[in-house]
Amino acid sequence: MKKIIEFLQQSRDRNLEDLKAYLRYPSISSDPQQADALRNCAQFTASLLRNAQLENVTVHEIAGPPVVTGSWCHAPNRPTVLIYGHYDVQPVDPLPLWQHDPFAPHIEAERIFARGAADDKGQILMHIHAVGAILKSTGSLPINVRFLIEGEEEIGSPHLPDFLEKHAQELRADMGLISDSSMWAEGVPAITTSLRGLVLLDITVVGPNRDLHSGSYGGAIGNPLEALARMLAMVKNQEGRILIPGYYDHVENISPELKKRLCALPFDENAYISQLGVEQTWGEEGFSTLERIWLRPTFEINGLWGGFNGPGSKTVLPSEAHAKISMRLVPKQNPDEIIKITSDYLLAIAPPWVKVKIDRIPGGGPAATVPADFPALAAAQQALQESFQHEAFFIGEGGTIPVVAHMSDILKIKTILIGFALPDSKQHAPNENFHLPTFHTGTESLIRLFHYL
Amino acid sequence: MKKIIEFLQQSRDRNLEDLKAYLRYPSISSDPQQADALRNCAQFTASLLRNAQLENVTVHEIAGPPVVTGSWCHAPNRPTVLIYGHYDVQPVDPLPLWQHDPFAPHIEAERIFARGAADDKGQILMHIHAVGAILKSTGSLPINVRFLIEGEEEIGSPHLPDFLEKHAQELRADMGLISDSSMWAEGVPAITTSLRGLVLLDITVVGPNRDLHSGSYGGAIGNPLEALARMLAMVKNQEGRILIPGYYDHVENISPELKKRLCALPFDENAYISQLGVEQTWGEEGFSTLERIWLRPTFEINGLWGGFNGPGSKTVLPSEAHAKISMRLVPKQNPDEIIKITSDYLLAIAPPWVKVKIDRIPGGGPAATVPADFPALAAAQQALQESFQHEAFFIGEGGTIPVVAHMSDILKIKTILIGFALPDSKQHAPNENFHLPTFHTGTESLIRLFHYL
Repeated sequence: MKKIIEFLQQSRDRNLEDLKAYLRYPSISSDPQQADALRNCAQFTASLLRNAQLENVTVHEIAGPPVVTGSWCHAPNRPTVLIYGHYDVQPVDPLPLWQHDPFAPHIEAERIFARGAADDKGQILMHIHAVGAILKSTGSLPINVRFLIEGEEEIGSPHLPDFLEKHAQELRADMGLISDSSMWAEGVPAITTSLRGLVLLDITVVGPNRDLHSGSYGGAIGNPLEALARMLAMVKNQEGRILIPGYYDHVENISPELKKRLCALPFDENAYISQLGVEQTWGEEGFSTLERIWLRPTFEINGLWGGFNGPGSKTVLPSEAHAKISMRLVPKQNPDEIIKITSDYLLAIAPPWVKVKIDRIPGGGPAATVPADFPALAAAQQALQESFQHEAFFIGEGGTIPVVAHMSDILKIKTILIGFALPDSKQHAPNENFHLPTFHTGTESLIRLFHYL
Repeated sequence: MKKIIEFLQQSRDRNLEDLKAYLRYPSISSDPQQADALRNCAQFTASLLRNAQLENVTVHEIAGPPVVTGSWCHAPNRPTVLIYGHYDVQPVDPLPLWQHDPFAPHIEAERIFARGAADDKGQILMHIHAVGAILKSTGSLPINVRFLIEGEEEIGSPHLPDFLEKHAQELRADMGLISDSSMWAEGVPAITTSLRGLVLLDITVVGPNRDLHSGSYGGAIGNPLEALARMLAMVKNQEGRILIPGYYDHVENISPELKKRLCALPFDENAYISQLGVEQTWGEEGFSTLERIWLRPTFEINGLWGGFNGPGSKTVLPSEAHAKISMRLVPKQNPDEIIKITSDYLLAIAPPWVKVKIDRIPGGGPAATVPADFPALAAAQQALQESFQHEAFFIGEGGTIPVVAHMSDILKIKTILIGFALPDSKQHAPNENFHLPTFHTGTESLIRLFHYL
């Protein structure tokens, strides 16, 4: 181990040059003009894998930007880890808010500034460097690894499920490992063990066959906006509990141990509130903020519209009202079943004077979770503790990372997420950056992780 | 009387030519390009008044299109009637749906087709012709009349209140008379004796200081759209009754006589429902459709919006939610008080986790009503009965006609409305038309009305 860490420390300059070179590709997956940049960036990713002495390095041509894979599987009877990352990046607009060219990496105050620095080129490169350092200094890995690096994450990984299906055999592994998230704070590592799922609904409420004059008809004809407001108001009670029958049937109680662990996290509720500009948090009674975000399901109105929304007034009784709903799910909630009971409930509570149509919006999927006794967790915790000299927190993620669900569904593996971005790394925003001491220390922690696995 | 009616009948062709000439002016008040057409139309209106032997005919220059007045006041100890109308018209779009040029009057199947035929050039011209027929055939009128014909009605009469204030003395009268509405059906005259008032509100609900990710924050931060839906759902109970404390305090009960009279009207509820494409009417329990529209106050959501309304999904927890509200008022409800108690109630029921701002939108005014024993009603009923050979129905109007409120507020007079458009005259729509037999018979009925007054 000492030899490997020394090798890594001696490689710092070279590793930083790799990162700079990687960040120069404007690999914006949503921009059709960058198709060449994406292809070139895929080739460069492959060269990084080869340089780390990985084998079977392949650039797979698919309908979108290529998928890059590579592996080292000469450790029989040891676990196999599938390391996922992505080389595509978010768009850069608004460009004027960048202090430097987003594709000309700039180092200042121990941070490297460039689009993709934290999300996700910097983070996947740490894994490549960790594997490379072990292989180059010892000739072999203590575990088996497979890399899967795609170029469409920022546009929803449309071709990934198909790729996973086709290459399930070559990608088989005992667990997934992803670094595409954040630390708790600078110097405070975090391991994400749960992600919420997601289902999406579109509600259309139809009243009269045309917009009516609210003077000539108001009072005698039901208003679809009023119907929709009534329906949405009946989804939760005053205590924030969702009233859809069966909604909580499969939701697991939060164990006293987990409650205690979440309670022990140095979460600053006052800072959270003041940063959001609200007077108070609000959610399901009986749960803390972190429990509400990470471990409880939701019903959220993402959009609501109908009638007139211009300046002044238009006294219209509109023909239609619309809402878009997203529901975050927790483990054991079945997306199809949630869609069904929610639709049934909304239709049942709809006033008889409107017609209601409910459509599922494609996307989302079930929640994903890693059990507390999943062996990799202890290894990750030990590795992070040793490198960062600080306890690693187990955290949840309120959002949904589709690739984790795909890896669970198709490859039947559980995934842990160890993020190395700092909370102010500005992923998806101007002046995205990555903290270089974390880049180096994090790479070292991955070497230790592979050892303890 | 016989002599006057004969004179009128002999003038039919000339009167029709007046109407055609009047309809050729493209006097669209919302179109800045038609400023000249409006000025010319005002001059033509003045010439029509002069030709009817009215006196003091004046084209008043104001900030908008001119106001035209004229009078005949040589009947001491007889009532003075202020006849209001407007020479401006609605825009013509969508032009392709017109079967003929909207400003080239076309006669077909006893109707004249042109923009403004019914609203309001045809109707104000009937009053001018009625007065002209009496003056030309007898040399004097049985009452005093004043005409007030403006050119901005279709854009909300922005300069009228100011004009009324300045010319209150010259416009003093015992009652107002307006023909700018519809008959109950062809051959079935109607007298409008009540108009609902109107107040307008803008509701803004603010949550977090920016749009949030519904995964990262959903469940812990209150959603302003949810708050607004809850608030709006608490404004009425399931029986359609408005729950704002004090809202009905000054609302008068509908007398058994009035209930009986409304009940006797040949209103076809099934035709109404099927024409609107709804399964049922809906409103305040215990009241009929006509009662709900004409005699009961409302709370109507005219617009509601917030968050994402594009195709697909965007999992946003929006920062703001908005609604536009209109409330129709009935006599004795004070607009300022209604605004106050409604704002107070909405603020009181707002969840503590959002900030709520309520702004009054300018416009509207109190309800207007004419008491059942107002003398002009009997005169109008008798005149209409004799000319149309059918009982005139007393009806209400659910909407608000600001000029009636202005005449009540500023000139302190009550106004009756006798409409001569047919229900399918298509005011504000393509192929607007006016039924010529009604044009002639209606003018005759106005001659009788002036007599009975």
